[in-house]
Amino acid sequence: MKSIKILENKTITDVPFFKASGIHCGLKKSKKDLCVIYSERKAVAAAAFTRNIVKAAPVLLNMKTIDNNNIQAIVANSGNANACTGDKGYKDAELMAELTAQELNLSSSEVLVASTGVIGEPLPFDKIKTGIKLACDSLSYEGGEDAGKAIMTTDTFLKKLTIEFEIDGKKSMISAIAKGSGMIHPNMGTMLSFIATDANISKSMLNKSLKESVEDSYNMVSVDGDTSTNDMVIVLANGACENELIDSESKNYEAFKTALHFLNIELSKMIAKDGEGATKLLEVIVNHSKTLEDAKICSKAVITSSLVKAAFFGADANWGRILCALGYSGANLNVDAINIFFSNQIGTIQICKNGGNIGFDETLAKNILEEEKITITIDLNDGEYSATAWGCDLTYDYVKINGSYRS
Amino acid sequence: MKSIKILENKTITDVPFFKASGIHCGLKKSKKDLCVIYSERKAVAAAAFTRNIVKAAPVLLNMKTIDNNNIQAIVANSGNANACTGDKGYKDAELMAELTAQELNLSSSEVLVASTGVIGEPLPFDKIKTGIKLACDSLSYEGGEDAGKAIMTTDTFLKKLTIEFEIDGKKSMISAIAKGSGMIHPNMGTMLSFIATDANISKSMLNKSLKESVEDSYNMVSVDGDTSTNDMVIVLANGACENELIDSESKNYEAFKTALHFLNIELSKMIAKDGEGATKLLEVIVNHSKTLEDAKICSKAVITSSLVKAAFFGADANWGRILCALGYSGANLNVDAINIFFSNQIGTIQICKNGGNIGFDETLAKNILEEEKITITIDLNDGEYSATAWGCDLTYDYVKINGSYRS
Repeated sequence: MKSIKILENKTITDVPFFKASGIHCGLKKSKKDLCVIYSERKAVAAAAFTRNIVKAAPVLLNMKTIDNNNIQAIVANSGNANACTGDKGYKDAELMAELTAQELNLSSSEVLVASTGVIGEPLPFDKIKTGIKLACDSLSYEGGEDAGKAIMTTDTFLKKLTIEFEIDGKKSMISAIAKGSGMIHPNMGTMLSFIATDANISKSMLNKSLKESVEDSYNMVSVDGDTSTNDMVIVLANGACENELIDSESKNYEAFKTALHFLNIELSKMIAKDGEGATKLLEVIVNHSKTLEDAKICSKAVITSSLVKAAFFGADANWGRILCALGYSGANLNVDAINIFFSNQIGTIQICKNGGNIGFDETLAKNILEEEKITITIDLNDGEYSATAWGCDLTYDYVKINGSYRS
Repeated sequence: MKSIKILENKTITDVPFFKASGIHCGLKKSKKDLCVIYSERKAVAAAAFTRNIVKAAPVLLNMKTIDNNNIQAIVANSGNANACTGDKGYKDAELMAELTAQELNLSSSEVLVASTGVIGEPLPFDKIKTGIKLACDSLSYEGGEDAGKAIMTTDTFLKKLTIEFEIDGKKSMISAIAKGSGMIHPNMGTMLSFIATDANISKSMLNKSLKESVEDSYNMVSVDGDTSTNDMVIVLANGACENELIDSESKNYEAFKTALHFLNIELSKMIAKDGEGATKLLEVIVNHSKTLEDAKICSKAVITSSLVKAAFFGADANWGRILCALGYSGANLNVDAINIFFSNQIGTIQICKNGGNIGFDETLAKNILEEEKITITIDLNDGEYSATAWGCDLTYDYVKINGSYRS
């Protein structure tokens, strides 16, 4: 996208008037486990929360807080999810907001809260309390990466992206830190994404742009629309760009929404690539579907199939498993019209034609499948809709991590 | 069940007038790969087929054949699924029925066909042809076990069960051989179950009893109602017991249905226990649900969750993952009322009370979880319905088998 520029080595604290910090307070053994993100300017916020009916305390709290007009801070911890912790857990989440607000001279209704980690254990609040003070004292214009590190759990790399785009000739930035999740049913791991922007946009339009983007980005990461107890995406916009306020659908709104969606897609791919134990990023593109819903159902069925994922781990061009997943997905299909292709920088190969065997070059297929990124393109030849989902392979390490991982 | 007796060391060929054979014809390297089951007496048949819209050729053929009044034989091969093989595949399935019928002096409409193995490759028909002749020549009253072996793929043990029960004072038998499937989304492996009985029952009542049983047995084995391209359950009833014909709902029908369901439940457990790479049989019982559908949705969500399955592999009493799976299942729940228990011959332990932590004895939990069979009882305290699902843990070997397994 020519109008969107990726700014390497920048992070959320490079967005004007955003400070952040990430510190260690003892929830994890030695790694950073608590962060604060703070906009010195007043800001509007939008958020998307898990659809799981078992919602962690901070999710329940934020669902109320998010309605407030001014939101300037996020406090988040890893190592403990504060989920399934009852009234005590809810009060703990409230207290996290209050303590952060006190330190930053805000009202507690101006602070959002997030947690990720073990479910069902009470927060060790002494540690949290000390941690919030330390994190607020440590806030700086260089703390973006530290904040990103403090929300990592089984993530093997920090997920962050900063982009620049133009609104009416003015340069605006959007930057995010995110953490990923277990990848077979990632609805059960926790996905957090915190986004900061200096765009000047109304709360309602910010909300609209986020909601639309989430459907085709985070919600297509090997998920079936279901999410964990703690998932959330938060975007704070502080208007420091001083563009004319975006408060309706307009060219400027489209520019912002396009940029935000680009950022969310890239973060979604990073999350998929870093699925627990993953060695490969899989992208499933379904084209020419009868309906948009069918296209989504198909792409998700393939990306969540454990047999398909295990086949990619083994670099096995097993189109039968893909066809089988399509067949049980529940989507409306004309099986005899389906073509399937694998592609990446090595090349493109058709492995299924008209729902049957095509006798492809097994060596080329193997070479494509041994790469770290593979695009599976499924042409249903049955309509005009498309959808894309992202996921990863299923590996020994997934089992290792989830057969023993506890925090 | 006092009226149902398990007959150890008996198999389908111990049911009067049933012969069977299992031979090697070269579809697999050296193991048996083709079987025939044959009732010397006229018989009625009922069957349940995969709901996958990608249906293998033998499934499509049987869906027509099953309407015939007299069906006396089943011919089945492993090593090749004859799925996604187009018109040629369908003709091959027809030819399998015809060749078997010729050998047995039947009409081809009196023979059902089944295949399991690789998808998308044409049947090597020369081998099949030689195999059918050999299998028909080898039919005997001792061939039941050989037939069972000939349908095994990644199965590590032969699944078979024979029971005896009474209809109006007469002893009747039901016996089955079955094969299992990959266990994360077993809808993608192939499940075959062939059942023989000497009960005298009408085709319509046989069909009714099978359909009702399948819903709560095979369809609850870690499946969400979806199935592979080749799944099928077939029951042949040849009436040799000479009880008064069961042709309506009656005490005798109930006796037959109860016996058939008992057999199907036991086979379902064997299939779950022998899931690919599995080390543990998991049974998920959901009680006190608002609706039967919610109870089924809940039990299936838990048994299919990879994170839950991996936790059981690691003997990790991770009730949070169970609660999380319930939360995203889509079922109507009162989270704060949920209690969760683990049990087996070691003992029973409550690990979650009112949707929260109960501070259980971790050592006892570990001891229970290290056994080969674990029952997870989830009390929703919210209604009167129950459902049970079966599955297995997720292990390194699952990944190993499915990351390289090709036939």
